Amino acid sequence: MSNKIVVIYSGGMDSYTMLMNYRAAGRDVHAVLFNYGQRHLKELEYAMKVAEGLGIPHKVVNMSKMGWELLGGSSQTDKSIPVPEGHYEDETMRLTVVPNRNMIMLSMAIGYAVSIGAGTVAYGAHSGDHAIYPDCRREFVDAMNAVAQIANYQPVKIEAPFQDLSKGEIAEIGKDLGLDYSKAWTCYNGRAKPCGKCGACQERIEAMEYAGIEDPLEYE
Amino acid sequence: MSNKIVVIYSGGMDSYTMLMNYRAAGRDVHAVLFNYGQRHLKELEYAMKVAEGLGIPHKVVNMSKMGWELLGGSSQTDKSIPVPEGHYEDETMRLTVVPNRNMIMLSMAIGYAVSIGAGTVAYGAHSGDHAIYPDCRREFVDAMNAVAQIANYQPVKIEAPFQDLSKGEIAEIGKDLGLDYSKAWTCYNGRAKPCGKCGACQERIEAMEYAGIEDPLEYE
Repeated sequence: MSNKIVVIYSGGMDSYTMLMNYRAAGRDVHAVLFNYGQRHLKELEYAMKVAEGLGIPHKVVNMSKMGWELLGGSSQTDKSIPVPEGHYEDETMRLTVVPNRNMIMLSMAIGYAVSIGAGTVAYGAHSGDHAIYPDCRREFVDAMNAVAQIANYQPVKIEAPFQDLSKGEIAEIGKDLGLDYSKAWTCYNGRAKPCGKCGACQERIEAMEYAGIEDPLEYE
Repeated sequence: MSNKIVVIYSGGMDSYTMLMNYRAAGRDVHAVLFNYGQRHLKELEYAMKVAEGLGIPHKVVNMSKMGWELLGGSSQTDKSIPVPEGHYEDETMRLTVVPNRNMIMLSMAIGYAVSIGAGTVAYGAHSGDHAIYPDCRREFVDAMNAVAQIANYQPVKIEAPFQDLSKGEIAEIGKDLGLDYSKAWTCYNGRAKPCGKCGACQERIEAMEYAGIEDPLEYE
């Protein structure tokens, strides 16, 4: 079994922690980064900087020129829809869902894994996502695993190692690893400093508090 | 249940027949066309002409600028690999497999279906593909169906109506519908006339013979 693993890496704290955790475990980590026409590329720039700094092979898949906007209205891709403030649990957070985004990213990552001979694809879904994102739930991971076993000559395993963890527990792993969270961007807005108000910022702030980490990012 | 159906339409004879068959059955057909960096765009041009001619809503998803070439060596996207001649069954035909292509296209079509409120996505896998394309098999369709049920708030059904038919039987359906197969391009090469020698041409020629249709395309 190959030691290679393809990690879907957004540049946020969850996938940053996951990437570093696999790396610490001695896996041959290959990162896939997606430009899917996000409102801003700040998270992606953070991801590239980390991958380049550590010499982690990485591929940027550019989905921004493919007519992705056809895939429906989401505040993450449609700049006319304001980023909702408040918690993930709120109904307004449904606006941040890009239709079928995780299946699309996983499908591409699986194709990439096949092409480089990696047996595993990992993504950073966690329990805090479950309530609102259907494609972060265990049933989804299990169903994707079933299809990834048979879609190509080479079976690929899907791992979502954080699926039962809260964001706070992920931050604890990062703390144990001694991670520098100034290298992970979280805010849905792409200004010089994170806003501290959007759902993503609020969840990050609470997770850092839970783990007893002082967030190295300065908020607006 | 919505009458809308998203049909993955390549411009070849199988998906052309499928599109027209759903249309004849009174479904509200929406076509999705993929430019995935094929060697040539002739099939896609045929598809667009048909869709425009019949007023079928269609979206072209352009995957050619996204770094797709990273997804491994295939004669369909890598112009340095010659198109193999001979039958699909041959080992050389493995070269025509783009890693995880069907899962990627289905994932995008599912996202599109969710965004327009369509309950079904259809693609034209048929029994002749089974031997070499894992993602044309019934197990794959079933597994994709399982994941498409739970990946979004709105369940989507995957249909592969030709999965138990041979290409010849598909041509018979087209004959019954009175289809004009000059509107479907098949050849892997993109020259003025189809080559008549590649696997795709050979399968088409045999299917037409099986159904007793005179192929309106003139071969080289």
